[in-house]
Amino acid sequence: MPSGPTGRPVVVTGGAGAIGSVLVRALLERGDEVRVIDNLSSGRRGYLPDPASSPRLTLTVADLREPERYGEQLRGAAEVWHIAANPDIRLGTADPRVDFEAGTVATFHVLEQVRRAGVPRILFSSSSTVYGRPDRFPTPEEYGPLLPQSLYGAAKLAAEGLLSGYAHTYGLKAYVFRFANIIGPAMTHGILHDFFEKLRVDPRRLEVLGDGRQAKSYLRTEECVDGMLAVADRAADAVNLYNLGTHDRISVREIAEKVVAAHGGGARIEYTGGEKGWAGDVPQQLLSIDKATRLGWTPRRTSAQAIDLTIAEMVRTRGVHG
Amino acid sequence: MPSGPTGRPVVVTGGAGAIGSVLVRALLERGDEVRVIDNLSSGRRGYLPDPASSPRLTLTVADLREPERYGEQLRGAAEVWHIAANPDIRLGTADPRVDFEAGTVATFHVLEQVRRAGVPRILFSSSSTVYGRPDRFPTPEEYGPLLPQSLYGAAKLAAEGLLSGYAHTYGLKAYVFRFANIIGPAMTHGILHDFFEKLRVDPRRLEVLGDGRQAKSYLRTEECVDGMLAVADRAADAVNLYNLGTHDRISVREIAEKVVAAHGGGARIEYTGGEKGWAGDVPQQLLSIDKATRLGWTPRRTSAQAIDLTIAEMVRTRGVHG
Repeated sequence: MPSGPTGRPVVVTGGAGAIGSVLVRALLERGDEVRVIDNLSSGRRGYLPDPASSPRLTLTVADLREPERYGEQLRGAAEVWHIAANPDIRLGTADPRVDFEAGTVATFHVLEQVRRAGVPRILFSSSSTVYGRPDRFPTPEEYGPLLPQSLYGAAKLAAEGLLSGYAHTYGLKAYVFRFANIIGPAMTHGILHDFFEKLRVDPRRLEVLGDGRQAKSYLRTEECVDGMLAVADRAADAVNLYNLGTHDRISVREIAEKVVAAHGGGARIEYTGGEKGWAGDVPQQLLSIDKATRLGWTPRRTSAQAIDLTIAEMVRTRGVHG
Repeated sequence: MPSGPTGRPVVVTGGAGAIGSVLVRALLERGDEVRVIDNLSSGRRGYLPDPASSPRLTLTVADLREPERYGEQLRGAAEVWHIAANPDIRLGTADPRVDFEAGTVATFHVLEQVRRAGVPRILFSSSSTVYGRPDRFPTPEEYGPLLPQSLYGAAKLAAEGLLSGYAHTYGLKAYVFRFANIIGPAMTHGILHDFFEKLRVDPRRLEVLGDGRQAKSYLRTEECVDGMLAVADRAADAVNLYNLGTHDRISVREIAEKVVAAHGGGARIEYTGGEKGWAGDVPQQLLSIDKATRLGWTPRRTSAQAIDLTIAEMVRTRGVHG
């Protein structure tokens, strides 16, 4: 049975999460043996296929900072997809240790295990937050300087540097994907989740952080996974750096109005004001995705279409409280 | 007595090191109260002025990863100069933990102490290694992508990101200085130290790593310190990013020939071959220093003059074995 790009198993950290689990399903579909490592802090067993009916899937519940609990899963692996992270950017403001430990320290331990096991490739989910507050839109991969506004962005940048350092020092191949906002029905964080939760608590009003003019690019989880797999197939430099997003952006105000409409239109939208949603927020985000599209990948939906689809799914799965 | 930019004490991590100790003397000369924190792993008490004759200087011997041992030194400080680091770039190849612990983890702890003590400014010695292997010379601060070749560079990039994240999240000011090669008589690592050590062991031959065509920019320690102080005085953005180097570069071959000539000219130079001196080496390095020079600072010596002066000092202090 074909398994992995070289017939060997692949490892996915954070594979039980909102993005990781979609990747795991795609890898299983192409015939891979998939070894998930997840501490289930925000991932859920239920996001993964039923192990009883998926003999090529294993889940190791472990914290990435404790390599003795998962290191052997990397033995013989063709590649490691390092998707695990703190998914809540704002949480890093309240406690700087969150992103440092779950991001930077965890990534260091994963890389050490990759090096020791001789795994030839590591693929990493980075973020547009490494660009800080760029003055160029759409922002290309070679943009600099990289001055993150958040501790989440700092952890992603630290991880990118570690991948690059390991790749050049030890001869492995590194893939760095800088994500726009990634959305899908399984999210436990992010703007749509927040809006749905707020309306569940109080269907009459929707508080929006900031002035609503923040505008960002939203890519569906499954299209993001398609993009990663396409790049992983077609790029083979020592370090392969690719933005993944859509060609357009949508404002927070528009998203709020769409969510309220989906809830029957009865809620009053209240803006807290200010250009940023929170300290560390980047109000404008639009990535250049020319590099990835030159490899033949392209997002199928605009940001607005991705938002519409996800709202419709969330209405179905979570119900509305309008 | 004037002390610090606001009359308050200043803290210098790594203040007993080859660069830190020159900074400490400059701060003392301008009237500051200086609190040095150093674990003396590569720093030396002897690099600092005699505490008996320097009542405004204190030394706390502590590891930066143990904040309970030094945190109170930051209370009431006007600024923290975070200069401590593993000074041996090549060592990071043998053991990836070295740069991660002494660089990334130490910097995180320092920033946490800065945040908790409410210190308004942090100034950090970063490195040209964050640029990886740039395709643009001289390399300006906005160069991207930042793909370090070494784990040393990865740790510097991680620290830069942390400073930026903290600055934007908690409102402190950050200064990031990306150094060219910094040289002075007190170095315990680096090319001149290595060459002198090799000739001490065997005066008849000098082994040079690589093909000798690596060419880099060398700035004297005291000029580097002048540059940092000038930028610290005159720049006041949230994050202030400045290259510090010279306008020119000099090849490893030329440096080897200068060192051999200073030793009487009798040694045979043997090149190990290859473009790089070691895995993670960046063979060509020349930083754009336009941004710093626009603030009024300029290096006084060329790279060759800096090398000549340092060789002469080392011949005086270490003797020759030609």
